[in-house]
Amino acid sequence: MLELYTDATPNGLKISIALEEMGLDYKTHQVFLGGEQQTAEFTALNPNQKIPVLVDDDLVVTESGAILLYLAEKTGKFLPLDPAKRVATIEALMFQMGSLGPMFGQYIVFAAAWGNKFPDVTGRYYTEVSRIMGVLNTRLEGQNYLAGDEFTIADMAVAPWIRLCEIHPACKNLPLDANTNLKNWWHRVAARPATQKGIANPTPFADDKQFEGFVKAVVGLGDLHK
Amino acid sequence: MLELYTDATPNGLKISIALEEMGLDYKTHQVFLGGEQQTAEFTALNPNQKIPVLVDDDLVVTESGAILLYLAEKTGKFLPLDPAKRVATIEALMFQMGSLGPMFGQYIVFAAAWGNKFPDVTGRYYTEVSRIMGVLNTRLEGQNYLAGDEFTIADMAVAPWIRLCEIHPACKNLPLDANTNLKNWWHRVAARPATQKGIANPTPFADDKQFEGFVKAVVGLGDLHK
Repeated sequence: MLELYTDATPNGLKISIALEEMGLDYKTHQVFLGGEQQTAEFTALNPNQKIPVLVDDDLVVTESGAILLYLAEKTGKFLPLDPAKRVATIEALMFQMGSLGPMFGQYIVFAAAWGNKFPDVTGRYYTEVSRIMGVLNTRLEGQNYLAGDEFTIADMAVAPWIRLCEIHPACKNLPLDANTNLKNWWHRVAARPATQKGIANPTPFADDKQFEGFVKAVVGLGDLHK
Repeated sequence: MLELYTDATPNGLKISIALEEMGLDYKTHQVFLGGEQQTAEFTALNPNQKIPVLVDDDLVVTESGAILLYLAEKTGKFLPLDPAKRVATIEALMFQMGSLGPMFGQYIVFAAAWGNKFPDVTGRYYTEVSRIMGVLNTRLEGQNYLAGDEFTIADMAVAPWIRLCEIHPACKNLPLDANTNLKNWWHRVAARPATQKGIANPTPFADDKQFEGFVKAVVGLGDLHK
């Protein structure tokens, strides 16, 4: 039985989407990010103290991008073997890991957790996330998914971040409507039954608890890294 | 013949290190990041307008992490097949792509390009990069390389970033000396002849030109994204 340590955050939801899309059985352990990621038990699984973590018998896999590649190789699904499609999948996954995720994360840190205390800094990340959304929009011109006509792990990685534009109060002003290909892609992905089941797991904590945990974990602001 | 579009930045140097370590022939095209990444010719190669880009006949690969995986699969080198070692390699690569690289990058943006205009923000990234360096130091306890006893693409990805602690004026106060495993690892990697050859390619532009290009490209500060 696969065991998933996670929370209802974009990086966590990538993996529940993947597990549901791949039809794998798994057990979910929800971690409250207001401090439970720093317990000795969790730190033994991931010294970086971040979710998600996947345990597959004696193998522990951390980093959402590594877990997606691991599950794709384990099942033979959602990572094409054709060289050009494989490159397209992995480069879109890396673009999510290195640009979309970190920059979206910084935007939420400064717009929400830090309450826009530094408007120039919030503005930097607003501009950068908008630019990144434009790059994804261009990539989707004439194709249904990020790596072409097939739904892949790259789509699983990007979807929970773009979803924030519709559900997170600080993200509703990001330019999703102006990026029609990206908006249509998100709705195409969100209509998949297995993806819907993944996005619903785990059930989020109440909004105020989730936000409290987020603020506590923000380096430079919260008290978890003092 | 492989063609590499790059500059002497950490993400660029990862790939020249890989090409040298793998013994591959390649041609280098140096891109000045003060604007040459926005030409029509370069944008056709990478709509995200970032280096490095690798061209292998009719295949164009972007994103340094994707290029490393592509070259490892092409050559069968530096990416172990043993499941545990493979997972260790890919998760360390993802940790570099998603945490070390972006957070180190933000630190340099606020400490150097932005001239420490927002000390709380610079401090956030100083604390986070220090934390990340500690995670790498812990990972290296009792092993020579990031994925175990073998030198892998994960080491190639991390090395050019840690190198900045010794060569970049804004990074010399980062805690490399306090993280002994990490410092010894860096010197172990830096002693490899092929890695040295990769790090030296391309020759950097003059310091003032490189810094001018960097500032111009910083979203929210420079003029390239207005």
